[in-house]
Amino acid sequence: MTEPSEDIELYTIGEKVLGERSPFSQILGLKMDFMDDEMVCLKFTMRNDLIASIDVGALHGGVIASSLDMAGGLVVFLNAFRQARLRALKNKSCKPARFDTIDLRVDYLRPGRGNQFTAKAWILRAGKKVAVARMELHNDENRLIAVGTGTYLSG
Amino acid sequence: MTEPSEDIELYTIGEKVLGERSPFSQILGLKMDFMDDEMVCLKFTMRNDLIASIDVGALHGGVIASSLDMAGGLVVFLNAFRQARLRALKNKSCKPARFDTIDLRVDYLRPGRGNQFTAKAWILRAGKKVAVARMELHNDENRLIAVGTGTYLSG
Amino acid sequence: MTEPSEDIELYTIGEKVLGERSPFSQILGLKMDFMDDEMVCLKFTMRNDLIASIDVGALHGGVIASSLDMAGGLVVFLNAFRQARLRALKNKSCKPARFDTIDLRVDYLRPGRGNQFTAKAWILRAGKKVAVARMELHNDENRLIAVGTGTYLSG
Amino acid sequence: MTEPSEDIELYTIGEKVLGERSPFSQILGLKMDFMDDEMVCLKFTMRNDLIASIDVGALHGGVIASSLDMAGGLVVFLNAFRQARLRALKNKSCKPARFDTIDLRVDYLRPGRGNQFTAKAWILRAGKKVAVARMELHNDENRLIAVGTGTYLSG
Repeated sequence: MTEPSEDIELYTIGEKVLGERSPFSQILGLKMDFMDDEMVCLKFTMRNDLIASIDVGALHGGVIASSLDMAGGLVVFLNAFRQARLRALKNKSCKPARFDTIDLRVDYLRPGRGNQFTAKAWILRAGKKVAVARMELHNDENRLIAVGTGTYLSG
Repeated sequence: MTEPSEDIELYTIGEKVLGERSPFSQILGLKMDFMDDEMVCLKFTMRNDLIASIDVGALHGGVIASSLDMAGGLVVFLNAFRQARLRALKNKSCKPARFDTIDLRVDYLRPGRGNQFTAKAWILRAGKKVAVARMELHNDENRLIAVGTGTYLSG
Repeated sequence: MTEPSEDIELYTIGEKVLGERSPFSQILGLKMDFMDDEMVCLKFTMRNDLIASIDVGALHGGVIASSLDMAGGLVVFLNAFRQARLRALKNKSCKPARFDTIDLRVDYLRPGRGNQFTAKAWILRAGKKVAVARMELHNDENRLIAVGTGTYLSG
Repeated sequence: MTEPSEDIELYTIGEKVLGERSPFSQILGLKMDFMDDEMVCLKFTMRNDLIASIDVGALHGGVIASSLDMAGGLVVFLNAFRQARLRALKNKSCKPARFDTIDLRVDYLRPGRGNQFTAKAWILRAGKKVAVARMELHNDENRLIAVGTGTYLSG
């Protein structure tokens, strides 16, 4: 368990990573939705320029992959930051956390239709070198649209 | 072997799929670069809003995934269209081709730095129900930035 | 909900698929453990010839992949059989079900140590052409050793 | 370029890793076939107990996954060993190399029919923490049966 004051710090860092620091996340309109010790949820809104084809009217697969990759990367990043902060309390040094995607798999289960979407991510493995996160994309009717797994360099 | 006149027809269809029919492909700036019976190459140009982070200055992983998914889907789509056209010559009926991504894996090998990028895709398996394509992303110094594999509903 | 008598029929089919019909499943010692409308669980026992390396003493990654692939394929197969049976009641024809793996992803989370292992699979997507299953491998201390996702030709 | 005498040392190490050190590789009958600075090829022979189903008579998907995982792991392992040996010449210390699979994707392209199979692996990315290898399985008629990608902890 982290204290509430720490969560606010991490939540704010998450907002910065998604906001002015990350141009492509802004194009997609990704925003922080929820965060606790276990997971991160991002949200974004349907727009006409995020669809794959005017014939189908559903999210482009690349938008889905992007939102899942970002959610997975962020849960790994914030977890590494949390760990670094804990070490810093002892070691008086806080190495800045980062994340790089090594690989990503996305399974597209249903057409990405809806008004609002939530990309949820949680950690499956948090090693010293490598972290693995699992992700899900739901629409505003809570239909599961896609799932993903990402492997990230951590620390 | 298809005749040159047929290639022009398919190339034009590819341009339409990427152009006015596909809003998100336009956001990424994806354009047809090259096409033959074996493969499709798309190209796009670096822009400030396609980067992952202003600290790193490389393509967002989602942009890479999107361009590879689009190249893989297009090579499957055009191949299905080519097959349908051949059947139509015999059957006098040409069912319109489509593609849906079932799943996608992307391996990120190097930071996506460069001025211009090429996403190449070719078919590994072209079944009646399912097609599998392999993809590569190179920058303008011909460095291999990412590879991917996509599974698509075909026909 | 299926009736208990139907479950027994499917369970017996599962045992046959794993048993005398499937030589490599017998090498691994895979057996039916549990089945309901939602999932299939297979079990197998550690043996000295299933380990990756005598230095490490944990399951070979290929054994893990094999058990997950088999569990995923079986849940797809039994679901297709269930659907075919329902159609047969109406159509008086029951096309035999089959499954072929299109692709498989496995994420190895922890060394495969333990005495007994359970491979659980459930369906994420059950389309007419393609089914997607998710899988997990636990040891007898209920530690999550690996997760997987498989895409299968169905019907 | 490594000298011939070094290749013989690495080849022998590869044989040991596949041989008495790795019980499951022996079950599959995996043997070294070829090795150079770029790649590793393993070979194995069809046997009745490696098939998926007596109805189909083709290799079990798990056998294919296992052979690809082993080839990918081995090319990473031998590359790390080669690097460690080069460093040892300067540093007078040679940390033993190891490999652990982080994740594996296999795409099954054709039924695994044939008398003899070759699993080829080469490195896509060789980082300090993580290596990525690509793999292919061919039969003795040089038909491409499956492709794979593996991510491994290196060093």
